[in-house]
Amino acid sequence: MSDLVHWEDVEVGQVQRFGRYEVTQEEIVEFARQFDPQPFHLDEEAGRRSIFGGLIASGWHTAAMFSHMVAEHVIPATASTGAVGFDDLRWIKPVRPGDVLSAETRVLEKIESRNRRDVGTVRIAGRVLNQRDEAVMTLTSIVLFRCRP
Amino acid sequence: MSDLVHWEDVEVGQVQRFGRYEVTQEEIVEFARQFDPQPFHLDEEAGRRSIFGGLIASGWHTAAMFSHMVAEHVIPATASTGAVGFDDLRWIKPVRPGDVLSAETRVLEKIESRNRRDVGTVRIAGRVLNQRDEAVMTLTSIVLFRCRP
Repeated sequence: MSDLVHWEDVEVGQVQRFGRYEVTQEEIVEFARQFDPQPFHLDEEAGRRSIFGGLIASGWHTAAMFSHMVAEHVIPATASTGAVGFDDLRWIKPVRPGDVLSAETRVLEKIESRNRRDVGTVRIAGRVLNQRDEAVMTLTSIVLFRCRP
Repeated sequence: MSDLVHWEDVEVGQVQRFGRYEVTQEEIVEFARQFDPQPFHLDEEAGRRSIFGGLIASGWHTAAMFSHMVAEHVIPATASTGAVGFDDLRWIKPVRPGDVLSAETRVLEKIESRNRRDVGTVRIAGRVLNQRDEAVMTLTSIVLFRCRP
């Protein structure tokens, strides 16, 4: 029997805390140049003049850092076939150079497939936290898990 | 008077089509290495053996490509102070090397602030389309626009 976490093994209410992501100015600027070239993501001085009071990471960069921590710590242990999408993503606090992020997930709901016996859906609340345990981003993931044969 | 699009200028039902993003194998693999190292995002052969039948872009990469097109074509013309987050993000079809993406937005709703006169909220439906005009990703953005002084 596979040790991977299948749909049957997931329990509503389960909480996982994982990951450690050090945010650097270099990576903030590199991501922003490629995908979100707004002044407060590109330049410390422009950030200081903005409502954010300093350089901050693109929200999509924070989402990608969350993805990194999930891919590193969660996916290898699960029989997941990937996320269908996300609901309710909110960028709550700025992410700045020097921040150290981690992630927390909580299983909200399991939904049986109507017409497939090989996969089931799981709704998972995710939070990205900084070194002060403040949530910087929250989202609800909708993930397909394989069922045991 | 500023030429930038302020909250008052936004009209419900407005549609914009913009952007052109050529998806390369190199960029798919580079993004995946950094943020979403799953086999079908990293390696053509592993992709062929997966349910996707070939190398596909990370969903977060597609979101970042959407961000790039918005930052290039929309944000410079608007008095937007950034997105609060989004709802209902769905990855609908795989994005593959050689695909050429574009974006479409439609204004769904304007919401006046209860306790701020300087900004208002706009809910915007976004779609990322491929060269066959198929939606590969959809989402609803929640964006703050500055009000005219």
